[in-house]
Amino acid sequence: MDDLFAFGKSILAAQPFSQLIGAELTLFEPERAEISVLVRDDLKQQHGFVHGGVVSYLADNCLTYAGGSVLGDSVTSEYKINYVRPAIGEKLVAKAMVISSGKTQAVCDCKVFAIKDDNEVLVAVAQGTISKANKTS
Amino acid sequence: MDDLFAFGKSILAAQPFSQLIGAELTLFEPERAEISVLVRDDLKQQHGFVHGGVVSYLADNCLTYAGGSVLGDSVTSEYKINYVRPAIGEKLVAKAMVISSGKTQAVCDCKVFAIKDDNEVLVAVAQGTISKANKTS
Amino acid sequence: MDDLFAFGKSILAAQPFSQLIGAELTLFEPERAEISVLVRDDLKQQHGFVHGGVVSYLADNCLTYAGGSVLGDSVTSEYKINYVRPAIGEKLVAKAMVISSGKTQAVCDCKVFAIKDDNEVLVAVAQGTISKANKTS
Amino acid sequence: MDDLFAFGKSILAAQPFSQLIGAELTLFEPERAEISVLVRDDLKQQHGFVHGGVVSYLADNCLTYAGGSVLGDSVTSEYKINYVRPAIGEKLVAKAMVISSGKTQAVCDCKVFAIKDDNEVLVAVAQGTISKANKTS
Repeated sequence: MDDLFAFGKSILAAQPFSQLIGAELTLFEPERAEISVLVRDDLKQQHGFVHGGVVSYLADNCLTYAGGSVLGDSVTSEYKINYVRPAIGEKLVAKAMVISSGKTQAVCDCKVFAIKDDNEVLVAVAQGTISKANKTS
Repeated sequence: MDDLFAFGKSILAAQPFSQLIGAELTLFEPERAEISVLVRDDLKQQHGFVHGGVVSYLADNCLTYAGGSVLGDSVTSEYKINYVRPAIGEKLVAKAMVISSGKTQAVCDCKVFAIKDDNEVLVAVAQGTISKANKTS
Repeated sequence: MDDLFAFGKSILAAQPFSQLIGAELTLFEPERAEISVLVRDDLKQQHGFVHGGVVSYLADNCLTYAGGSVLGDSVTSEYKINYVRPAIGEKLVAKAMVISSGKTQAVCDCKVFAIKDDNEVLVAVAQGTISKANKTS
Repeated sequence: MDDLFAFGKSILAAQPFSQLIGAELTLFEPERAEISVLVRDDLKQQHGFVHGGVVSYLADNCLTYAGGSVLGDSVTSEYKINYVRPAIGEKLVAKAMVISSGKTQAVCDCKVFAIKDDNEVLVAVAQGTISKANKTS
């Protein structure tokens, strides 16, 4: 389990865009992943909320981690996301889990929360398909 | 028309996250929007492709612009995206248009292309709902 | 609560297509709904599985009921569905719940199960937006 | 081409649920499919519109046909649909096409129109993933 977590962290560290955003893998075990981001001004949109693109990044990446926990090296094939509240707070946390998996694909869901003054508020919910990566791509 | 384009650019300039990514509004007219990003190393994932989170950001933001072109100040309520090829190239361009619109919502679609050696390759396709922003949120 | 359940049943009874399919509302309470269908040969596709259109109908309608339980008269604005296994069995059961709701919209999810020899197997998962119906439409 | 069309019609004729609904394949060629349904009272919901489940069935099945035109025997893995107007008229027509395809999957989109007094009105738009069927399932 610790090996999986360490491996997951090394992948995130090898993603320059995840480093640019400041993403941190805070949980990674079979069928589950959690990625957190500390809110900074340069992650916001014009109204002071965290930009939807950051929320989407979190959902997308966390879905891939959840699927990857059972499939190995993986990519997100597709997902859909519903934004349910503006993302306001000190931190965002995405929590994804596997709903169903086979040999080459997993269907996962993900909830993204904003943490503000110790309250966790749901800001988005996503569902998508994670596919085992081809060796050639 | 020029006023709309200038207004659109001012909104993108006021989004710190869009500035962090280096997004540029390259077309904005009623029912259509186009946003471009020059590929940089810090926008990539561990295999050297542009990170899916950047592609999602582009689709999401471009969908909002397309919807906003007919609704005014708007937010993305929800969207789904299918990644169809790894994003490789010098530039990404998202092109969104309105499929159907009413007073408070528009359904839009968006295609994201990677430009490599003057070839435009489809990397993702998205569809979503844009909602007129409430004055209070 | 019983009034709500009775009211929900009367709506389903007033939907000719739900009657054609043989759908039955088996649970309806604030934030939750369950709709069941007994599998018949005329609900199948060419391989003998229940047709995806029946599974979609169930997910769509059950999402609307879940949203309608908190919004009143409602319609499904949009949803996405992932089919995870062929639908085989004596009965299908869709179970939907509200994930987040406001005054005019609710985001809900739904799982569709096939019951075969007393085993409940997940066959599809859906997520969508339910909107309060306009009086005029 | 005619062989493909005849083959497509034989598949639809072999789907009992498609027969129950009265679906007709009205176009089938590489990368494109069109399925039509004559509106009957037993396809409606409580307000007299065609039930969303029928619209979903049409989108789902037409997406599968479009994907199947390039992949062979196929299933819909997932799709999302936005309903944009109530389905009112004498006939519904779904028109799907391939957006991108590989060896085992195709991403397709579909528009569903209602025909009323010779006017074609868009009622729904869908996007989804079609997968080549496994011989074993």
